[in-house]
Amino acid sequence: MSEFSVFGKSLPRIDAWSKATGEVKYLDDIKIQGMLYGKILRSPHAHAKIVSIDTFGAKKLPGVRAVITAEDTPGIKFSFVPALADKLPLCKDKVRYVGDEVAAVAADSLEIAEKAIQLIKAEYEILPAVFDVEEAMKQDAPLIHEERENNIAFEGHKSFGDVEKGFRESDYIFEDRCVTSKVTHCCMETHGCIALFDKLGKLTIYSPHQAPHTVRQEMARILALPLSRVRVIRTPVGGGFGQRLVTDMKEPVAAILSRTTGRAVKIVNTREEEFCTARTRYPYIIYLKTGVRKDGKILARQAKVIVDNGAYNDKGPSTLNYAGECFAVLYNVPHIQYDGWGVYTNKQFGTAFRGFGNPQLHFATETQLDAIAKKLHIDPQQLRLKYANMPGDVAASGAKITSCGLVECINKAAESSRWKEKRKEPVDMGDGKCRGIGMAAMVHTGGGGRFYGYAATDTFVKISEEGKVTVISPAPEIGQGATMVIAQITAEVLGIRPDNITVINDDTEIMPYDLGAWGSRTSFVCGNAAKSAAENTREEVIKVAAQMLQRPAERLGCREGKVFLKDNPEVAVFFEEVAGYAISKIGHPLSGRGRYFDPLAPQVGLDRKYGHHLPTFAFACQVVEVEVDTLTGQVKVLKVTAAHDTGRTINPSMAEGQIEGSILQGLGYALSEECVEKDGILMNPNFADYKIWTALDTPSYEVILVESIDPDGPFGAKGIGEPGLVPLPAAVANAIFHATGVMFRQLPLNQERVFFGLREAKK
Amino acid sequence: MSEFSVFGKSLPRIDAWSKATGEVKYLDDIKIQGMLYGKILRSPHAHAKIVSIDTFGAKKLPGVRAVITAEDTPGIKFSFVPALADKLPLCKDKVRYVGDEVAAVAADSLEIAEKAIQLIKAEYEILPAVFDVEEAMKQDAPLIHEERENNIAFEGHKSFGDVEKGFRESDYIFEDRCVTSKVTHCCMETHGCIALFDKLGKLTIYSPHQAPHTVRQEMARILALPLSRVRVIRTPVGGGFGQRLVTDMKEPVAAILSRTTGRAVKIVNTREEEFCTARTRYPYIIYLKTGVRKDGKILARQAKVIVDNGAYNDKGPSTLNYAGECFAVLYNVPHIQYDGWGVYTNKQFGTAFRGFGNPQLHFATETQLDAIAKKLHIDPQQLRLKYANMPGDVAASGAKITSCGLVECINKAAESSRWKEKRKEPVDMGDGKCRGIGMAAMVHTGGGGRFYGYAATDTFVKISEEGKVTVISPAPEIGQGATMVIAQITAEVLGIRPDNITVINDDTEIMPYDLGAWGSRTSFVCGNAAKSAAENTREEVIKVAAQMLQRPAERLGCREGKVFLKDNPEVAVFFEEVAGYAISKIGHPLSGRGRYFDPLAPQVGLDRKYGHHLPTFAFACQVVEVEVDTLTGQVKVLKVTAAHDTGRTINPSMAEGQIEGSILQGLGYALSEECVEKDGILMNPNFADYKIWTALDTPSYEVILVESIDPDGPFGAKGIGEPGLVPLPAAVANAIFHATGVMFRQLPLNQERVFFGLREAKK
Repeated sequence: MSEFSVFGKSLPRIDAWSKATGEVKYLDDIKIQGMLYGKILRSPHAHAKIVSIDTFGAKKLPGVRAVITAEDTPGIKFSFVPALADKLPLCKDKVRYVGDEVAAVAADSLEIAEKAIQLIKAEYEILPAVFDVEEAMKQDAPLIHEERENNIAFEGHKSFGDVEKGFRESDYIFEDRCVTSKVTHCCMETHGCIALFDKLGKLTIYSPHQAPHTVRQEMARILALPLSRVRVIRTPVGGGFGQRLVTDMKEPVAAILSRTTGRAVKIVNTREEEFCTARTRYPYIIYLKTGVRKDGKILARQAKVIVDNGAYNDKGPSTLNYAGECFAVLYNVPHIQYDGWGVYTNKQFGTAFRGFGNPQLHFATETQLDAIAKKLHIDPQQLRLKYANMPGDVAASGAKITSCGLVECINKAAESSRWKEKRKEPVDMGDGKCRGIGMAAMVHTGGGGRFYGYAATDTFVKISEEGKVTVISPAPEIGQGATMVIAQITAEVLGIRPDNITVINDDTEIMPYDLGAWGSRTSFVCGNAAKSAAENTREEVIKVAAQMLQRPAERLGCREGKVFLKDNPEVAVFFEEVAGYAISKIGHPLSGRGRYFDPLAPQVGLDRKYGHHLPTFAFACQVVEVEVDTLTGQVKVLKVTAAHDTGRTINPSMAEGQIEGSILQGLGYALSEECVEKDGILMNPNFADYKIWTALDTPSYEVILVESIDPDGPFGAKGIGEPGLVPLPAAVANAIFHATGVMFRQLPLNQERVFFGLREAKK
Repeated sequence: MSEFSVFGKSLPRIDAWSKATGEVKYLDDIKIQGMLYGKILRSPHAHAKIVSIDTFGAKKLPGVRAVITAEDTPGIKFSFVPALADKLPLCKDKVRYVGDEVAAVAADSLEIAEKAIQLIKAEYEILPAVFDVEEAMKQDAPLIHEERENNIAFEGHKSFGDVEKGFRESDYIFEDRCVTSKVTHCCMETHGCIALFDKLGKLTIYSPHQAPHTVRQEMARILALPLSRVRVIRTPVGGGFGQRLVTDMKEPVAAILSRTTGRAVKIVNTREEEFCTARTRYPYIIYLKTGVRKDGKILARQAKVIVDNGAYNDKGPSTLNYAGECFAVLYNVPHIQYDGWGVYTNKQFGTAFRGFGNPQLHFATETQLDAIAKKLHIDPQQLRLKYANMPGDVAASGAKITSCGLVECINKAAESSRWKEKRKEPVDMGDGKCRGIGMAAMVHTGGGGRFYGYAATDTFVKISEEGKVTVISPAPEIGQGATMVIAQITAEVLGIRPDNITVINDDTEIMPYDLGAWGSRTSFVCGNAAKSAAENTREEVIKVAAQMLQRPAERLGCREGKVFLKDNPEVAVFFEEVAGYAISKIGHPLSGRGRYFDPLAPQVGLDRKYGHHLPTFAFACQVVEVEVDTLTGQVKVLKVTAAHDTGRTINPSMAEGQIEGSILQGLGYALSEECVEKDGILMNPNFADYKIWTALDTPSYEVILVESIDPDGPFGAKGIGEPGLVPLPAAVANAIFHATGVMFRQLPLNQERVFFGLREAKK
């Protein structure tokens, strides 16, 4: 008999039914009585002074209930990091990118709102704009935020060991410039919100958010409201991936429109608005310098990162810092230097996106590693194995590795992809087509981080009179399966089926405080809290069962819907019977409370120079096999083999789903997706021109789950929301390198780039 | 400095603002997308066979989405007590009162639904009906439920001591027949519900209920659904008073209409439907026999109670039993016999109503006591004092009196009303008008009861990052102030202001299991659970503050928004600072869990012969001064002085509000209110003909709060929801007796009855 009866099984998600039947109500399905429709007038210019805004015509249009401009807002600048606040809900003097919020209306219908927007006459004085991030760094570049000295929005620096010493002791120095592209999240549900100010001045925001408690804090800041006057209700999330972490200006704008009209106001992005304004992954330019000894030992690594911040600050500093954390961990390099600059440009700005800066860095480091391997005539698998992290390692940064399945990931991915055989030589398929195989490993957080000085949450459990269980957990369900993770962990502890569990996880008024769904932290942080609450509840359950069975509590266990005598499982009572007995015979209900709490977080959280910010690490190795058509530049992905260290897998089919989704999203990032901008205008704001990978594009893949059993994760589990995407672009580039001998340093590796790149290389 | 800083203060209710501004959304304000309007076709006959129901015309009407009859229901009979189930959601073969549910429709608008109802052709074969309860007991009476042998619906018997022995040892025997009237609750919000079956077969009921968890169980029973498929959301309650405890047939009917149409269905009573079908107080006929010694000692009491049950069972057995419990407590009579019968009649049926059978019994016992006092030439105050219950008493029934302020109530009421002076003689005012003064005492539960084998609940508390507190409590707010009671108790424990607290108490999916708001139990049961949860939370708060202040936790206290050093209150931190420090410096949120649990409940709960069912008793004495116009029979109430033992008062203005409301409702019961029925048809189903007492009718009154400090109540508190009404009719009758020398034994003491009664007495 397995140690677990529910945990680790591919059980159907408890929220699957409501999604499959269409019962679930997404934001756009929700109508509140008297609700108005809001619409935002956006800047057509990348950089301009606002000369005047005439709202007279819009206000006159029948059915228009409010037209607002900057004057109607509190005028408080916002950013995720308060010290970097630079964004007004509605622009006052200047617009800084095509899409910047200028004015807004609320009307009886969306049609009227759209018409009203066209009746607002905004006059601009166009200013010189800057779109190239390296241009923007220059002293004579147009200044985007005039209260600043230059366009440097933020910096981040980390230094562990002595990188110059490392370079001196190295036999080889490798230097590369890598460029990653701007891609966007492409959530199937475009972002939106309903804001409702009630008569008591309390604001409720309904919105598909990943971090409801954070959005609550942010809304209070932007609107100068006491925190207690803001409630955030998370509506079902049709895609998150990091895009729904930070408050978007739609929310304060809708709130102000609601306060003005006394009615609920809904604003939902059109798909085009979503493409143009709903944030992107930060494009990085990475200057990577690595010092390597003859034996392959990497002695020193230096990265200089230039982040194209876009027009405003958001998660840029965090992603920059986080990527630096991971940069300082993989392969235990003794000397690390990491310097980054976020630079304003007159373009849509970035935010968090699955991987949080880490895919960008891994593209640089893991492609360079293959170049190093080639130079040293070492097989890339062997090179990676040679310096793979091991459990118990402490990185130069101070990061402590607890569980670590990296070696197993590398070996299993290699074995399963027939690496040894296929890696020998690229295969010429004739007609200019050649096949190659490449790999990339990765390190990522397996449980969020201590960055914000807080890695904790509480959870409540109650058992109903018929033995059904409610878990009040802050774990946001964003499609990733958090609800099922909480249910499955709770079910394992209580020995019941997950479909006997309801998870309440959508309302800041009810849920304990938590930081939300990001950094692959939900299973780890909220999962641990749920486990603790369930264990607390189980004590009560067992105590009652002990009375029913007339046996000592310490000899009882919970499993398969029963509480039973461990020595003799025949002696058992059903879980529902225990719940009923507690109420009818003993006279009280059953409940519990639990907590996950990382006491290190407040100590190290905000210390950006220290490296031990991650409570646990996820590792992986992915192998990609490609066929490159050297005549056309077309790259066909034949197979992806992904071996991932999940700690202990909570639900294999859900974990595979996360990895498979990451692979598809990663293939898009590697090969086809790109926000193509011209003079700050997005040229492909639609799915016809912006190419995501769909079910039809899916290559053959194999997912291997490596269970390293984390000492701190719930039942040994680690997060798996992001890792699947992190190494993929590098693995694709390495496979192309193997097939063609040409290493590409810029994403995406689309047909045009590969075609010209190969032609260039031939010269 | 008082022991308390928040508890015991007349602070404004935290839910006052939303009510005063109209922000609160009552059921009728709520619209759900796609919602239909339901309407019920009701029987025009008091007793008839259903010959046929033709729904063809109704179904054809455009906008009608469903028409249902008994055939469309699961056909499961229901009653609050499952063993007494006798009511179908829609009648199948017979109707049993004017108003019985026959068929129902759901339509796009209320107007269409009303029209459709008129198009349903129901044919009946009229049966002989019985309206008089004593007639209905006869063997040849028309049988209302044909599966039964006669019209006796239920019985209840209690016997403590030896009543025959008591009578033999008595010097005087007093025998009276008392009749109490049928009155209805007259909630300002008529009852209604919205039912919504979702695509997964889960039913959500939105309804202004007093006992959401019980309604959930009842809905599951009526509809043959697993309990987990029912969720009840309590909408704000515009009046309860016992009428909203048990499921009304509107709810299953709306649910079936929702299942049929796949849409939400709302059914709301018109005021006339509310009068005719929303239940009443049970009218009792009480044959009361009392044996008294010459010195005034009451040796034996025997009551035979005939309950006019109406057409169906509801809370009749419970009210009968409960009244018997209290009958066996007041004045510690050694020999008690109590026998009651609930009898079906072809009329609207009764349910719980503020006082739960106790006002009926008190009308008999306390008026007879004044007759005894007169006979023995003892002042009624002195007689009551002579045998008043005292703390520590054990009644013949086994009931244990813990806190008891009865003597103080009697004395304070007498003193404050200038009893001694006014009682000497009735005052002749000339013109046939004379003034008198009367008193009545009472005993009632101060904290629910153990009747259902369960007197417990759990509560969760969480503190937000800014130091605001959420309490997840099952205490239903039904206008009585439960939300404020929970907030005020929690605030006292945590040393903060109640307006920093949000109480979540409206959803069976979230709240711990509880029996609801009845029996003046909420403050006691849910209040104790909230106190326990708050204390559990305070431990965490103090632990953090101890770290902040560098002082030992045991020397810290919480008060006035601070955690402070008890020896030196200058050393203090603000509560919000503690919450913020916990998250930012220690790294976890603050929360707690608590429980109230009466372990006696399962043991004694269902033993109807045992008398120790009430965890604590509330006592009171009310003095009423009247002026009787002997020429017209008009009774004018000059003043009510009400002294009530509240244990320790939680919020004086709220307690006074409960007592004042009870007084007005009690004056209506005593003097004016009555459901006048003719051949089973209610003749006064409107506020023009059914006379409730309004603000304009309010006499002078004085409320005196006597604090007996209950050992088991939260901070010594007891419930005060019902007691104010219990002694009032008796006190009014006793005052009329004093003024006129005539004792009236039948309610209401309206002008007609007094006029004819006085004329009869003159003869």
